[in-house]
Amino acid sequence: MVETISSLDDKQLQGMMKMMGGSGKKKELPPIEGDFYHLGDEALKDEDRELQLKVRAFLEKEVKPIVNHYWNKAEFPFEIIPKLAELNICGLTYKGYGCPGKSNLMEGILAMEMARIDTSISTFFGVQSGLAMGSIYLCGSEEQKQQWLPLMQQFKIIGAFGLTEPEVGSAAAGGLTTTCKKINGKWVLNGQKKWIGNATFADILIIWARDEDSGEVKGFIVKKDNPGFAVEKMQDKMALRIVQNGMITLTNCEVEEADRLQNANSFKDTAKVLQMTRAGVAWQAVGCARGAYENALDYTRNRKQFGKPIASFQLIQNHLVEMLSNLTAMQTLCFRLSQLQDQGLLKDEHASLAKVFCSLRTRDVVSKAREVMGGNGILLEYNVARFVADAEAIYSYEGTKEINTLIVGRAITGFSAFV
Amino acid sequence: MVETISSLDDKQLQGMMKMMGGSGKKKELPPIEGDFYHLGDEALKDEDRELQLKVRAFLEKEVKPIVNHYWNKAEFPFEIIPKLAELNICGLTYKGYGCPGKSNLMEGILAMEMARIDTSISTFFGVQSGLAMGSIYLCGSEEQKQQWLPLMQQFKIIGAFGLTEPEVGSAAAGGLTTTCKKINGKWVLNGQKKWIGNATFADILIIWARDEDSGEVKGFIVKKDNPGFAVEKMQDKMALRIVQNGMITLTNCEVEEADRLQNANSFKDTAKVLQMTRAGVAWQAVGCARGAYENALDYTRNRKQFGKPIASFQLIQNHLVEMLSNLTAMQTLCFRLSQLQDQGLLKDEHASLAKVFCSLRTRDVVSKAREVMGGNGILLEYNVARFVADAEAIYSYEGTKEINTLIVGRAITGFSAFV
Amino acid sequence: MVETISSLDDKQLQGMMKMMGGSGKKKELPPIEGDFYHLGDEALKDEDRELQLKVRAFLEKEVKPIVNHYWNKAEFPFEIIPKLAELNICGLTYKGYGCPGKSNLMEGILAMEMARIDTSISTFFGVQSGLAMGSIYLCGSEEQKQQWLPLMQQFKIIGAFGLTEPEVGSAAAGGLTTTCKKINGKWVLNGQKKWIGNATFADILIIWARDEDSGEVKGFIVKKDNPGFAVEKMQDKMALRIVQNGMITLTNCEVEEADRLQNANSFKDTAKVLQMTRAGVAWQAVGCARGAYENALDYTRNRKQFGKPIASFQLIQNHLVEMLSNLTAMQTLCFRLSQLQDQGLLKDEHASLAKVFCSLRTRDVVSKAREVMGGNGILLEYNVARFVADAEAIYSYEGTKEINTLIVGRAITGFSAFV
Amino acid sequence: MVETISSLDDKQLQGMMKMMGGSGKKKELPPIEGDFYHLGDEALKDEDRELQLKVRAFLEKEVKPIVNHYWNKAEFPFEIIPKLAELNICGLTYKGYGCPGKSNLMEGILAMEMARIDTSISTFFGVQSGLAMGSIYLCGSEEQKQQWLPLMQQFKIIGAFGLTEPEVGSAAAGGLTTTCKKINGKWVLNGQKKWIGNATFADILIIWARDEDSGEVKGFIVKKDNPGFAVEKMQDKMALRIVQNGMITLTNCEVEEADRLQNANSFKDTAKVLQMTRAGVAWQAVGCARGAYENALDYTRNRKQFGKPIASFQLIQNHLVEMLSNLTAMQTLCFRLSQLQDQGLLKDEHASLAKVFCSLRTRDVVSKAREVMGGNGILLEYNVARFVADAEAIYSYEGTKEINTLIVGRAITGFSAFV
Repeated sequence: MVETISSLDDKQLQGMMKMMGGSGKKKELPPIEGDFYHLGDEALKDEDRELQLKVRAFLEKEVKPIVNHYWNKAEFPFEIIPKLAELNICGLTYKGYGCPGKSNLMEGILAMEMARIDTSISTFFGVQSGLAMGSIYLCGSEEQKQQWLPLMQQFKIIGAFGLTEPEVGSAAAGGLTTTCKKINGKWVLNGQKKWIGNATFADILIIWARDEDSGEVKGFIVKKDNPGFAVEKMQDKMALRIVQNGMITLTNCEVEEADRLQNANSFKDTAKVLQMTRAGVAWQAVGCARGAYENALDYTRNRKQFGKPIASFQLIQNHLVEMLSNLTAMQTLCFRLSQLQDQGLLKDEHASLAKVFCSLRTRDVVSKAREVMGGNGILLEYNVARFVADAEAIYSYEGTKEINTLIVGRAITGFSAFV
Repeated sequence: MVETISSLDDKQLQGMMKMMGGSGKKKELPPIEGDFYHLGDEALKDEDRELQLKVRAFLEKEVKPIVNHYWNKAEFPFEIIPKLAELNICGLTYKGYGCPGKSNLMEGILAMEMARIDTSISTFFGVQSGLAMGSIYLCGSEEQKQQWLPLMQQFKIIGAFGLTEPEVGSAAAGGLTTTCKKINGKWVLNGQKKWIGNATFADILIIWARDEDSGEVKGFIVKKDNPGFAVEKMQDKMALRIVQNGMITLTNCEVEEADRLQNANSFKDTAKVLQMTRAGVAWQAVGCARGAYENALDYTRNRKQFGKPIASFQLIQNHLVEMLSNLTAMQTLCFRLSQLQDQGLLKDEHASLAKVFCSLRTRDVVSKAREVMGGNGILLEYNVARFVADAEAIYSYEGTKEINTLIVGRAITGFSAFV
Repeated sequence: MVETISSLDDKQLQGMMKMMGGSGKKKELPPIEGDFYHLGDEALKDEDRELQLKVRAFLEKEVKPIVNHYWNKAEFPFEIIPKLAELNICGLTYKGYGCPGKSNLMEGILAMEMARIDTSISTFFGVQSGLAMGSIYLCGSEEQKQQWLPLMQQFKIIGAFGLTEPEVGSAAAGGLTTTCKKINGKWVLNGQKKWIGNATFADILIIWARDEDSGEVKGFIVKKDNPGFAVEKMQDKMALRIVQNGMITLTNCEVEEADRLQNANSFKDTAKVLQMTRAGVAWQAVGCARGAYENALDYTRNRKQFGKPIASFQLIQNHLVEMLSNLTAMQTLCFRLSQLQDQGLLKDEHASLAKVFCSLRTRDVVSKAREVMGGNGILLEYNVARFVADAEAIYSYEGTKEINTLIVGRAITGFSAFV
Repeated sequence: MVETISSLDDKQLQGMMKMMGGSGKKKELPPIEGDFYHLGDEALKDEDRELQLKVRAFLEKEVKPIVNHYWNKAEFPFEIIPKLAELNICGLTYKGYGCPGKSNLMEGILAMEMARIDTSISTFFGVQSGLAMGSIYLCGSEEQKQQWLPLMQQFKIIGAFGLTEPEVGSAAAGGLTTTCKKINGKWVLNGQKKWIGNATFADILIIWARDEDSGEVKGFIVKKDNPGFAVEKMQDKMALRIVQNGMITLTNCEVEEADRLQNANSFKDTAKVLQMTRAGVAWQAVGCARGAYENALDYTRNRKQFGKPIASFQLIQNHLVEMLSNLTAMQTLCFRLSQLQDQGLLKDEHASLAKVFCSLRTRDVVSKAREVMGGNGILLEYNVARFVADAEAIYSYEGTKEINTLIVGRAITGFSAFV
C-alpha cells in the first residue's frame, strides 16, 4: 500500500533508516552501494535523509516492479500519479502555494533517486514540478500562482512545457517560429512544438511564442480543450519510452490575456526557468548511472562463469571500479553544484558544465553496466538495458553536449563560438 | 519487384555501378560515402563488385523501408525470405550442394552490406548461412550435406544453432550442461538452450550436447516437430528486436543416429564452425557502423541550426571525422582478415582481435552518429537509433569483449588468464 | 624576497585575497580560473583560504621561475628548502612537535597548490612531510618523535622513505626481500630499495625490512653516513626529473634498536602511513591537471590562427571544457575525500578510488592541454610539457591504477582478484 | 659493422629472413610480434621483404643501442649518417638521380621500421628524403635536380625544409609572413622560421616565402653560409629530443634566381610536397606504436609480481590486446593508404584521415605500454618512455589533429569550417 509507505511515522522511518544505512549510529553502517562517499548518510541533515529514504522506498515498491512493462509498451503508468502526490515532494523548492520550500540540494537528491529507478518517471516529474510549475512560479502573476500551483503540486492538474520546435532544438533562444499576436484583446497562437513531454495528457501547457509585433518571446497557459490546440503522440522512440512526447500544432489558438504569463517578457525569462531546472538534469544523469551500476554490481556477484562469480575476475572488477569512480565523481560534483545554487551563486555555465560532465560519464557507466552482463544486458528484465537507452535521451535533452559546451566555453574564454 | 532487381542483366548492372561509383572509368568517380578508401570500387574484382551492388540495391529497396516497423514490433518480416533466396548468396563460400563457392572476403563484404541496412536481417542470414549450414558443411556426413544444404541454400529449410545455455555464455567450451545419451540405439537429449536465433520458426536446429558416457560434445539435427522439443520466444529485448531468439527446452528429446552430425566428435569441431563465422561478426559490426555513419552524415548536411547546416560546424565535423576514421580502419582491418582467411592463415586470435576492435569501435561510431542528431537521434525514423541499440548486441554475441580479449591475450603472451 | 611573502601581515594578505578572488565581498569576485565551483573562495574558512593564497603566492614567485631549468637538468633546487621551511606548513596535520595541527582537507589543498606549479616539488614535500615524518608520527616512540619531528618540520633534517624494491612494486605487502636480523643486540639490514625519493641527499631514511626471525615487517631510521648504506642516483627519467630518486643498497647495515620504529610491528603499520598519504597523491593529480589547464587556457586566449585567438574556435573550446569538467569533478571528489578523512571515515578503498579517478582524468587533462598548444606544447617554456611528463609518474606511483582498482574491487564485490 | 649488414649477400639475407619470419616456407613461421596480420611476411614481394629486414637489422644493431643516450642529452648521433647512406634507401620513391624508384608502400614500411626504433631518426630521415629532396624533386628544374638530388641521396648534402613560422603553425597556407622580393636580379628574403628540423647542421635549406610583389609563395634553396642566414638551436623540448630543430632568422638574405625552385609558383606546389609526405607521418605513428608495444609485451612476459609474470594477469592482457588491436588497425589502414598512393588515387583527405587516426591511436598505445610497466615505464632504459614523449610530437606536427580533421570534414560534408 502506498498509504503505508508515504505515511510512515517517525519511529518507523528511523527503523528503516537504520536498516538502509542512514543516521543514528552512523559510523558503523556499511555504505549503501551506490553512495561510496557517504553523501546520503553523512552529509545530509537527518530530516532530509529521512525524506530521501522515504522516496526511495516508494520507488522501490511502487515504481520498480512496473516500469519495464510500460517502457516496453511505450505507455504511461497513470496509477502512480496519486501515489506520487501523497509523497508531497512536487514543487519541492518553492515557497508557499502548498509547496514544501526545501533546498535545491534536496531536489537534486530526489531527482537522482527517481532516475535511479526510472528516468522516464523522473522526467515526468521534472516536467510537472520543474518546467511547468517553475514557469508559473518564476513568470506568473500572484493570481496565476494562486490559481495553478496548489493544484499542480497535488497533481490534480498536469502541466507541460512547450518550447522546442521541429526545426529548433537546443538553439531555442534565437529561432522560435511559433508566433503570438494580440488581436481584438485576445492572443492568437500559431506554430508547432515537438518533443513536448506529458503533452498528450496534460491539462495545461506552457507555450512559448514570439510576439509578431514586438519580436519578444512570451509565455502562455494553454488548456487542453482549446479548439486551436491539437497534439499527436510521438511514436517509435528508443529511449524514455514511458514519457509521452507530443507534437503540438497550434492553429489560430486563442488565449486570454489572463492566461499569458504576466512576468515573462522576453526569452531571458524563459531562460531563468531552464537555468533553475538544468541542475536537475545533471542529477537525473547521476541517478541513471547509479541505477545501472547497482543492478550490474548485483548481477556480477551472482552470475557465475568458469565456476565462480564473475565479480571475482579482474576484467569485471575493472569495469565496476571505473563505473563507481565516475558515479562518485558525478555525485560530488552535483552536490557542490546544488550548494552553489542554494547559496545563490549558480550561473548558467556551472549547470552546463555539470550537464556535460554527467551526461557524458553516465553514457560510460551504463555502457559498462550492460557490458558486464553480456547478452543478458540487452534484456529489459535485468534492469540495465532501459538505462542504456534512456541515457541517450538525457545526453541530448535540455541542451545537447555541444550547446552546453559552448555555453561554458564562452564563459571561460570570453569568446562566443556558437556560429 | 524483387524479380526486377535480382535479375538485372549485365548491362543494367553496369549502369547501376556507374551511378553508384563502381568500376568502369574508376578514377573519376566520387567515393561512395562510407567507403572512403575505395575498398569496394577499386579493390574488388568486377564480378564481386557487381554482386556487392546487386545485394545493396536489394537491401535498399526491399529491406530498408520495412525494418523500423518490424523492429519496433519485435517481429520478423517473413516476406523477405523468398527474395533473399533469389539473390543466391546463401552458403556463399561453400563448394557444391548448390552453393556459389565464393571467397570469404566476399562473404564478409556482403555481411557488411546487410548490417549496413539492418543488423537483425544480417544476423538472421548469418545463422542460416553460417552457423546452421556451416555446422552441416563442416561436421556433417556427405549424406547429411546432400540432404540439407541445397534446401537450406534456397531457404526452403530454415536452420538454427543451439549452443548457448542459460548459465553458459561465452565460456561454452568448458561448461555445456545439455546432455545426450545413447539409449536403445537412439540419442536422448535433455537441457536448455537460450538466445537461439531463428529458433521460434526454424525447421531444424543444430543442438550441441555433452555425451553423458564419453563426456565429449556432440552435434544433432533436431526437427521442430520432435515431441521432446519446445521453444519459447524471448521477450523484451532492447536490441536486434527483429531476431527471434528462442529459449529451447529439450525433455527426453529423441534423435536418430542418422541425425547426429557424423563428424562432430568434440568441442573442437564446434569451435571450427565458430571460427569460420567469427570474421563475419566483425564485418557485421562494420556494416552497423557504416549504416549509422551514412545516415548521420546525410542528416547533418540537411539539418539547420543558427541558419546553416550543422555539418558546417567544427564540433559536428569533428564527430563525423572520428566516425569515418574508425569506420575506415575497421574496413581495412576486416579486408585483411578475410584475405588471411582466404589464404588459409586464419587463426582464432586473428578473428578475435577483429571482433574486439570492431565491436568496440562500432559502439563509438553509432554513439557519435546518434549524438550529432540531437533529440531526433532517438527516433527510429531517422535510422540511427536502431543501430545504436543493435551495436550492443553485436558487442556481446559470439564471444564478449572479455572472452575474445583473453583468446588474443593467450596467443600473444603464452599465458592463459581465463581463470 | 621570500621573507616579504611568507611574513605578510594580515592586512596585506587580505588585500592579496581580494585581488585573487577570496573571501571578503565574496559573491562579486570572478572565479579563479581553475576553481570553477568556488571551492577555494567559498568553501574554506577564511584562515585556511589565507594560508592557501600565501602558499600560492610563494610558489608563483619562488618556484615557478626556476623549475623548468632544474627539470631539464634533472637537478634539485636546494635553495628553496629554507624558504619552504618559513611557510611553516610541513607536518601540517600533526599535533605537537612544532606541527600546525591543521585539517587533512587543508593538507590536500596545499598539495594541489604545489603540484599546480610543479609536481616534483610537491613530491619532495610529500616525502618529507607525509611519508618520512608520517612514519615517525604514526610508528615512532614518543622519544623518537621528540628527537626528529621538530627538526624535520623545519627541514633541518631531510627524510626519505624506503619501501619499494627493484622487483617489488605496488605489491609491497607480500613480497619485501630486504631483511633485518637482530645480531648481538643490533639490527643488521641487507637488501636493495629502488625509486626512493630524496634518497640521494636525505639525512635519515625510513627503511622497511622483513625480520628474518619473525617474518614481520619492521621499520628503521637509517642515517646517511651509516657505513652499510649506499645510494646511487637513478638516471634518465622522463618524468619528475627534479625528484632525486635513489637506488639504495644495504650491506650488513647495522642499526641500533633505538633507531627501530618502536610501534611498527607488521606491514599493517606501514600501510597506515600509506593510507594517510594516498589522499595527498590524488590532490597532487588535481594540482597537476589544474596547472596544465590554466596554462593552456591562457595560451589559447593569446595565440592566434586565421586571424583570431584560437580560444574562439569550437574545437579548442571543446577541449577546454572537457579539461575543466574533469578538473572540477576531481576537485569536488577530493574535497569530499578529505572531509571523510577529517571525519575519521576514510578507508583504503576511498583513497584508492580517488587515486584511480584523478590520475586517469589528469592524464586526459594534461594531454588535451598539450594538444591545444600544437607544437609549442612540447617546449618546456610554455609550462605544459612538464605536466604531461609528470602525470605519468603520478599515474604509477603510490599504487598503479591496477593495484588501486583491485583494492576498490575487493571492497565492493567482496572478492579478492589480486592473483 | 654496418658494412657487414648493409652488404649481406642474397643468401645471407634469406637466412636472416627465415630466422625473422619472412618468405620461404611462409606459412609455418610464427608471426613477428608487432605484425599480427602478417603484412610484412605475406603481403610484400620478396625483394621488398628483404629490404625491410635489412633495414630492421641495421636499426636494431646500429641505432637502438645509442638512442637513449642521445635523446637524454638532446644531441644528434652524426656517426649514423654514413651508415644510413649505405642502406641506399634515401629518396626511395624517386625515379632517377641515383634514387631507387621503389613504391610508396615500401617507403611507408621503412618509415615504420625506423620509427619503431626511434622516431627522431625517422624524422631526420623524413626531412632529408621527403621534405627537402621532395621539394627539389617536385618543384625543382632539371638542372637543380641533377645538382642536388644525387648528393642528398648519399647524405653528402643534408637538407632542411623551412615552412613553419613562429606565429604560423598548421595554417601555413594563408599566413606566411616571411617575404621575398626581387631586387636587382637577386631575391632578398626576410623573416623567421621556427621548428625547422635538421636546420642547425643542414647544408641547404628549402625556404618558403611570400613574394612581396605577386603575393605568391615561392621556394628557395638557401645555403648555410649565406650571410643573411642565422639559425639557433631550439632548447628544452620534451619530445623528439634527438631532432635538432632550429629557429631561423633571415635578414636581407640574398639568393640567386638560380637557387629559386623553378617550378614552385604558389602555395599549391608547396602543398604537393606536404601531401606526398603526409602518409609517411602516419606510418611513423605506426612505428612509434609498434616499438612501444613490442617493448611492453616483452617486459610483461618477464616482470613478475605476486610470483608470476604480469603478462598472465587479465588486466595486463587487456592492455596488451587493446594496444595490438589499435596497432593492427593502423597497419592495415596505412597499407591501404599507400596502395591508393601507388595507384595515383591519393587525395589530401585520405592522408589526413590516416594522420588523425594513427596519431590518436598511437597516443593510446604508447600510454598503455608505459602503464603496464608501472614506475619502470618512466625510465628511458626500458625503451618505452621515449616513445611516450615522441608520440606527442607526431601528434602535432605536419598538421595538428584539428587541421587534419577540418581537411577531411570539408571533403565529406562539402563545407569548410576552418574559420
